[in-house]
Amino acid sequence: MSGTLAPVDPARAHRLINHGPTVLISSTHSGVDNVMPAAWATVLDMAPAKVVVVIDRATKTRELVDASGRFVLQVPVVAQLALVDFLGMHSAQDEPDKLDRAGATLFRMPGHDLPFVADCAGWMACRVLTEPSKPETYDLVLAEVEAAWSDPRMFRDGRWVTDAPPDYRTLHHVSGGRYFAIGETIDVDRSPDEGPGN
Amino acid sequence: MSGTLAPVDPARAHRLINHGPTVLISSTHSGVDNVMPAAWATVLDMAPAKVVVVIDRATKTRELVDASGRFVLQVPVVAQLALVDFLGMHSAQDEPDKLDRAGATLFRMPGHDLPFVADCAGWMACRVLTEPSKPETYDLVLAEVEAAWSDPRMFRDGRWVTDAPPDYRTLHHVSGGRYFAIGETIDVDRSPDEGPGN
Repeated sequence: MSGTLAPVDPARAHRLINHGPTVLISSTHSGVDNVMPAAWATVLDMAPAKVVVVIDRATKTRELVDASGRFVLQVPVVAQLALVDFLGMHSAQDEPDKLDRAGATLFRMPGHDLPFVADCAGWMACRVLTEPSKPETYDLVLAEVEAAWSDPRMFRDGRWVTDAPPDYRTLHHVSGGRYFAIGETIDVDRSPDEGPGN
Repeated sequence: MSGTLAPVDPARAHRLINHGPTVLISSTHSGVDNVMPAAWATVLDMAPAKVVVVIDRATKTRELVDASGRFVLQVPVVAQLALVDFLGMHSAQDEPDKLDRAGATLFRMPGHDLPFVADCAGWMACRVLTEPSKPETYDLVLAEVEAAWSDPRMFRDGRWVTDAPPDYRTLHHVSGGRYFAIGETIDVDRSPDEGPGN
């Protein structure tokens, strides 16, 4: 599995989720793995990449993230739609065999004791930030990306591949059982002297 | 302008950004308006909707948000690509006439002293949450949505319109001058007894 993956330059890892895809959060503790989808995730910073994810405290995955301080944030694609939806509709709190029933294929990356979900477009191994200002009032989890990888058929050299097949497009959850697939690339025609502003 | 807008049920306002579009953040203080794009924004909670947005402290918009405690988070579409990109490439710190040069059309909503950007798909009037746990270490702004509206040609009855013209699709910033437009809707075939899980 890992033979097809390429490391992502840490300065560009944030691009895996900059366009707002729904992600899968996976974690492990004491031999128990779990995976759940999260639509409420975004970039917090780059170089090094940091992420912010809302993970409900009632979930099994949140239990594992809190206990281990680590998780994988990965970007699923259209081919995985049924898996993503199943993982969101079933809870490991009630169904300990959820991952088996979902048909999820997990793998390990050398040096990272974390469950990676196979066949995603990209993966970020994340370490939870335990800053004094951590917002305990909400379900926010802030984390730093320690390493990232991508499937070069979808994301390579720090960029999304623009001619990827339809099944390789990212998923964007709307509500209920409805998703958008990401659409086509549009490049802005910028004059060469323009720099970032605000 | 406001004649074409429809109020959005607060319980469904989060759906305006659930699929991860790049948004425009606008604010005002002491007679100065500004607008900037933000790709790093997501939902924090629903009913009532809350949002979390990363807004760099160096920006003029952040100054206005901090001073007023209020902002509009709005969802631009493909037809506004040049405007969105211009607003991100020029800073009101250096160019006080940025909004005029951008050709931005602003309007007010009754009861809300905030600048709304015309021709977006949806708008959320937000009040910054000043919880004791507010994460000062980062550029996170947490806010509650006080009211929301949509252009019913793009979002109506709490749902994104699936047959909207290409120019009405949401924008998802990748990096530099590159964006994705959102693509087609995909509905999952769920068995009727399934409920939300994790």
